Amino acid sequence: MNVYFDNSATTIPLDEVINEVAEGMKEYYANPSSLHKLGIKCEKKLLHSRELLAGTINCTREEIFFTSGGSESNNLIIRGITKVGNHIITSRFEHPSVLNTCKELEKVGIKITYLDVDEFGQIDMEQLEESISKNTVLVSIMHVNNEMGAIQDIEKIGKMIKEKSHRAKFHVDAVQSYGKIKIDVKKSNIDMLSVSGHKIHGPKGIGFLYLRKGLSLTPIITGGGQEKGLRSGTENLPAIMGMIKAAEVTCNNLQQNLDIVKRLKEYFIKKLSDIKDIRINSPLDERISPYILNISFLGIRAEVLLHLLEEKDIYVSPGSACSSKQVVSKGSHVLNALGLCEKEISGAIRFSLSPYNTIQEVDYVIENLKQSLLFLRRVKI
Amino acid sequence: MNVYFDNSATTIPLDEVINEVAEGMKEYYANPSSLHKLGIKCEKKLLHSRELLAGTINCTREEIFFTSGGSESNNLIIRGITKVGNHIITSRFEHPSVLNTCKELEKVGIKITYLDVDEFGQIDMEQLEESISKNTVLVSIMHVNNEMGAIQDIEKIGKMIKEKSHRAKFHVDAVQSYGKIKIDVKKSNIDMLSVSGHKIHGPKGIGFLYLRKGLSLTPIITGGGQEKGLRSGTENLPAIMGMIKAAEVTCNNLQQNLDIVKRLKEYFIKKLSDIKDIRINSPLDERISPYILNISFLGIRAEVLLHLLEEKDIYVSPGSACSSKQVVSKGSHVLNALGLCEKEISGAIRFSLSPYNTIQEVDYVIENLKQSLLFLRRVKI
Ligand SMILES: Cc1ncc(COP(=O)(O)O)c(C=O)c1O
Ligand SMILES: Cc1ncc(COP(=O)(O)O)c(C=O)c1O
Repeated sequence: MNVYFDNSATTIPLDEVINEVAEGMKEYYANPSSLHKLGIKCEKKLLHSRELLAGTINCTREEIFFTSGGSESNNLIIRGITKVGNHIITSRFEHPSVLNTCKELEKVGIKITYLDVDEFGQIDMEQLEESISKNTVLVSIMHVNNEMGAIQDIEKIGKMIKEKSHRAKFHVDAVQSYGKIKIDVKKSNIDMLSVSGHKIHGPKGIGFLYLRKGLSLTPIITGGGQEKGLRSGTENLPAIMGMIKAAEVTCNNLQQNLDIVKRLKEYFIKKLSDIKDIRINSPLDERISPYILNISFLGIRAEVLLHLLEEKDIYVSPGSACSSKQVVSKGSHVLNALGLCEKEISGAIRFSLSPYNTIQEVDYVIENLKQSLLFLRRVKI
Repeated sequence: MNVYFDNSATTIPLDEVINEVAEGMKEYYANPSSLHKLGIKCEKKLLHSRELLAGTINCTREEIFFTSGGSESNNLIIRGITKVGNHIITSRFEHPSVLNTCKELEKVGIKITYLDVDEFGQIDMEQLEESISKNTVLVSIMHVNNEMGAIQDIEKIGKMIKEKSHRAKFHVDAVQSYGKIKIDVKKSNIDMLSVSGHKIHGPKGIGFLYLRKGLSLTPIITGGGQEKGLRSGTENLPAIMGMIKAAEVTCNNLQQNLDIVKRLKEYFIKKLSDIKDIRINSPLDERISPYILNISFLGIRAEVLLHLLEEKDIYVSPGSACSSKQVVSKGSHVLNALGLCEKEISGAIRFSLSPYNTIQEVDYVIENLKQSLLFLRRVKI
């Protein structure tokens, strides 16, 4: 049995997505900027794609802009809105594409406030309120945390920002929530949102951002002026088509998928009850996404357990994938922000689920977890 | 008959490229940063991909960095190397992703020299030599111009730059030459090079840059630290695999393809001899790429001719695709740089060829060109 429990790192593209990308490469190969009818056919497809995505988050198609993925969306938004002297508020446990970008901006004279999070990964609303000043141009908060699944109450956050400031814009990194948890940018007062294709069983190298009408950003890639000048470069229509397919499948089955994944997580946690010395860092809770189950195996080094599991064709990550190497050497900044101790951090494994996983897979993982732990705790590696 | 003569705008992906992308999505879906064996398998594939590309331009795999395409490569290089007070030299007729990026940098205190080009699109070597000063950090010159095909003597340019300055780095935008004209970065003293996948019958949304060992750039997308920190974001391995396939096919058949395209262009030009009132802006000449045939139809508005041709399923562009709309409204900056008059510019059509085009297609185009011109010149639209 092959068990892919690394869905927060990246997902397995759906067959219909693969077919759609191929269809895009065959039928929509032209440059949407070309003036002839092949180009116009692509331009129309592009327009329709924006419309479909807009429908999934309650915005208009003029507010959708394509990028190469989540990291680019985050960079474009954060770098594109700030000027020297500005103030940004974010949290301690954002994705590196937010956190490291903020750190870069700090070097050139932009002030950053990093909000604390509690044990459930919830940002401190009072601290947020106190932090908003007249220089605050951006509050960037992730919807769902990629390592332990904390869901922020973006509606409450959006409301508070708008009450406290006319200037501060609200950015939501929705890379781990889009297609999994309903998002309504209007209802949540979101000004900017980042999404990535490959986290929803779509293609890699494609993503989009929502930018509320009337707002503008300084581009990081200039040139031919595509995406209304916000993002130059020949549009990647085949990948966009693949992402649209993935967005349709995930967004149309959002609640159903959530139920499946919730049952998997519940079952997983129930089966863990006879494993000793563990800490569940993402318990069953409304404030935590059922798509992620992060567990500390006390006294165990995560990477050692990870390799034992992979021998059984079970695929997981310590922390997040893109910071795996860093997590192994320095420890997870996310679990650190939650207040976990060193032992809890070094033994943490993230099982990230998809609705295509099954109960049988969970059984298989539990069985192998038990065996591996028995072995590791005996030999004390 | 369907004749796609818009290959400089974008090319039709090869069947083997489409299959390779699908294969990548099926077999190499994991995140190369994941520590488990699926991730490691992808990481290895990535390494091997760099090696293959490195072999095509005579560099090492450590010098290859993946990006989302030509525009991003150009932006990353130009923005990444310059600081306030620096000086950049480029030419008047670069691609917008160079030219507009330079214009942005001009606004923040970077000096730019725009070199003139002659009738054949050759930069003025004396002017280049005179322009290099102690503040010059970058000379950015395209290898092949995308609108009229001028080939710069990059070996001569590279040599002169290195003779005049230890500081100035040489960047070559090779988007229109890679896979078509042999490039040796060592021999030509190139420090940085930009390439795009979709111009060589590969996928869109993928490209790479060569950065000479020892040099560094300030990234424009920060985050997980992929591509040795130069370009964050989950690596787009399926598209990379597609691009590798395209690079193999084009680079392995480079001379053969060049011969095919040269014959097509010669034939095309020969057949044009009985059409009156035209100006060939990219004649048969060693200094001009056989892949591009740019012709001014005097007294005709290019977009009108373009639409007549597309009715016959012949696809061409006025100027370049990504600036088509601008070309129609403002006139081509490239043809302007060549010193063409307004009439010559407004009637200019670019036929851009590929080795997959045929003599029969040229015949079909010539036939329809004649008919269209007869009609247009009679009714004087
Ligand atoms: C929360 C979050 N934001 C941003 C990203 C970056 O997305 P991408 O890999 O598409 O650049 C990721 C995943 O890597 C993520 O989990
Ligand atoms: C010479 C040149 N440079 C750069 C680019 C930009 O490449 P991309 O479309 O991959 O961003 C193009 C094509 O659009 C080009 O012709």
